[in-house]
Amino acid sequence: MTTIVDSAASSASAAGTVAGNVVSGAGTVASSVLQPLVFDPLRRLQGGNDEDEINDEDRLWVAVDGMGGDDAPGPILEGCLQAIERLPLKIRLVGEQDRMRAAAADLELEVILERAQASGHLELVPSGPSIGMDDEATAVRRKRDASINVAMDLVKKGRATAVYSAGNSGAVMASAIFRLGRLKGIDRPAIGALFPTKDPGQPVLVLDVGANMDCKPTYLHQFALLGNIYSRDVLQVEQPRVGLLNIGEEECKGNELSLKTYELLKGESRLHFAGNCEGRDVLSGDFDVVVCDGFTGNVLLKFLESVGSVLLGVLRAELPRGRRGKVGSAFLISNLKRIKKRLDHAEHGGALLLGVNGIAVIGHGSSKALSVVSALRIAHSAASHGVMDDLNALQSGCD
Amino acid sequence: MTTIVDSAASSASAAGTVAGNVVSGAGTVASSVLQPLVFDPLRRLQGGNDEDEINDEDRLWVAVDGMGGDDAPGPILEGCLQAIERLPLKIRLVGEQDRMRAAAADLELEVILERAQASGHLELVPSGPSIGMDDEATAVRRKRDASINVAMDLVKKGRATAVYSAGNSGAVMASAIFRLGRLKGIDRPAIGALFPTKDPGQPVLVLDVGANMDCKPTYLHQFALLGNIYSRDVLQVEQPRVGLLNIGEEECKGNELSLKTYELLKGESRLHFAGNCEGRDVLSGDFDVVVCDGFTGNVLLKFLESVGSVLLGVLRAELPRGRRGKVGSAFLISNLKRIKKRLDHAEHGGALLLGVNGIAVIGHGSSKALSVVSALRIAHSAASHGVMDDLNALQSGCD
Repeated sequence: MTTIVDSAASSASAAGTVAGNVVSGAGTVASSVLQPLVFDPLRRLQGGNDEDEINDEDRLWVAVDGMGGDDAPGPILEGCLQAIERLPLKIRLVGEQDRMRAAAADLELEVILERAQASGHLELVPSGPSIGMDDEATAVRRKRDASINVAMDLVKKGRATAVYSAGNSGAVMASAIFRLGRLKGIDRPAIGALFPTKDPGQPVLVLDVGANMDCKPTYLHQFALLGNIYSRDVLQVEQPRVGLLNIGEEECKGNELSLKTYELLKGESRLHFAGNCEGRDVLSGDFDVVVCDGFTGNVLLKFLESVGSVLLGVLRAELPRGRRGKVGSAFLISNLKRIKKRLDHAEHGGALLLGVNGIAVIGHGSSKALSVVSALRIAHSAASHGVMDDLNALQSGCD
Repeated sequence: MTTIVDSAASSASAAGTVAGNVVSGAGTVASSVLQPLVFDPLRRLQGGNDEDEINDEDRLWVAVDGMGGDDAPGPILEGCLQAIERLPLKIRLVGEQDRMRAAAADLELEVILERAQASGHLELVPSGPSIGMDDEATAVRRKRDASINVAMDLVKKGRATAVYSAGNSGAVMASAIFRLGRLKGIDRPAIGALFPTKDPGQPVLVLDVGANMDCKPTYLHQFALLGNIYSRDVLQVEQPRVGLLNIGEEECKGNELSLKTYELLKGESRLHFAGNCEGRDVLSGDFDVVVCDGFTGNVLLKFLESVGSVLLGVLRAELPRGRRGKVGSAFLISNLKRIKKRLDHAEHGGALLLGVNGIAVIGHGSSKALSVVSALRIAHSAASHGVMDDLNALQSGCD
């Protein structure tokens, strides 16, 4: 299982019912959310976080859904224990206590876990029956004490500044909507993924990549506002260039949705609308935020992932051709390995759930400990940059 | 200018008016139509055509719009002269006679042109004022004797079995619809592009990549029928696996369009519906034909192009790192050049215009002679495989 929203995805209608149509047709978000292709798009997010000494007063509380993920809770627990060593955060790890203890025993993490608890950097928070990766998103209504719901509540009650789950992402969305609520003025939350660009230090935030299949122009308008704030506050882009995914540069190009969205964005003073962004421009570095419907975004995201592996396959086949090629390739083994590592999704984090009343990061269903750390880094970064303040200011602007 | 439909693209509404809404919102088809990324997707099409000796009785007539393209007629003339040396075809090259003669003089091709005419392998057909690359698609109505219209008429009158134009693709579509007409049972013609797959010998035909922005399920159903016949007859795939571009594998996944299209394709006995094709599956080789709306297809096509160049940029930066890397890269120069050549669009051909009553290939606006030859190879291949017979049989099936 390598998808984010897959099991959640349920049927469009089922998910729609759950969340008052907010997650209708919630798509499957590819593993590629976490597999930026070329550069490490998280470099900026990661910059300077891994310090040797972390001051306890700098630590922020993050709630973690310990039961979300294909192999949970093991890798989630392991990732949390690594994260508190490397990041200025404290973790409220929510889960079924017996399964959490069993995972700690299996992975021989009992001593480390005890130490983490003793230091106050990690708290175990008990929860009831969990949402399975194959459960419908509606399950978050039935299983009120599920780990994802309890984790959301921690944010709602102010006991954590962000929440992370690698669970069934339809369920994560539904839970976020029910427990945290939507931001005022936002009809539909969106999932935002970071794509690499030609500029290693500058990823582009693409949204929606799978939460909303059929969008209205107002949704895309709202995605643009949300993306703008995230790009500015979290990715530290001074004046994000917001693009509209389209089939041509000119204003007159596009489908009905993009033509009407263009009109809305053109007149929007709260962001810098940089015009239409064609398929070939997404990775160009000319845009910081690109908005699109969740269908197109999801297709693009999964396609991105596959193009990399196809191209690398060709390189592996083509480079060693001939005698000179064989010699040359032999010299390049370590460089090719480094390139491969860049493509390894375990290095990367999670997708941002934008538009709910709190900071939520959705991880990969197949998340391993390293992915958990990366996702928590994103959660921490978003939590520490005052993004919620600006989002709330946005709300008042929407009135 | 590197796009196919760009200038044609005009405004959605203008194009729509021209063609009775058939090309409404005609998108810009990226240069990438002609820039398959990794493998040569045309290998199968090209197989065995370039023979040393071409029998005159094997030659098929192809009509060529000599005035279509950014630099026309020069590169078109040059490409045609090369093509008749390499492919079993005869060319009716349509253009403004004075400009054609001037181009021949400029390129010092006068003697070769005369010889080609004398051998009966090339005929110059005069035409009136041409459609410019920046003209609206509606211009095909005003400029009745434009080269593209005259070329279409040659097919209609049976004086050519296929037509090729590197002109303004909105205009090419409009002209094809007016002059050749649509196939019965086909509401909207679509532009089909060949994407590479993991299997070098097996491209996948993706349609629509830019002709129809907002699609109905019936259009996608028709694209599937058209794509199936082209894949079978032209690409020689015995039983093409037809996929529906979507966000998940399951039947219940998707946006409104894909959910409804799934229903139509599931019950279609005239083709083998292989189910939903996610973004990551497009290049997998698991599908021979992938149908989608022209917005998504166009975004994907242009994205494909850019991912390759971004990834190659990284390789160029990463591979030579370190002392071993420098030595290794030096050994690989010729292999890297070969890979680059594979990516060079001049090596490749054109996109197929499917759904009109004739074989039409749309070339790249910036086509050079080599692209012209590749596109003519596609035109020849389509013309020589009886695809029109099967398309006509499809019509009767639609009654």
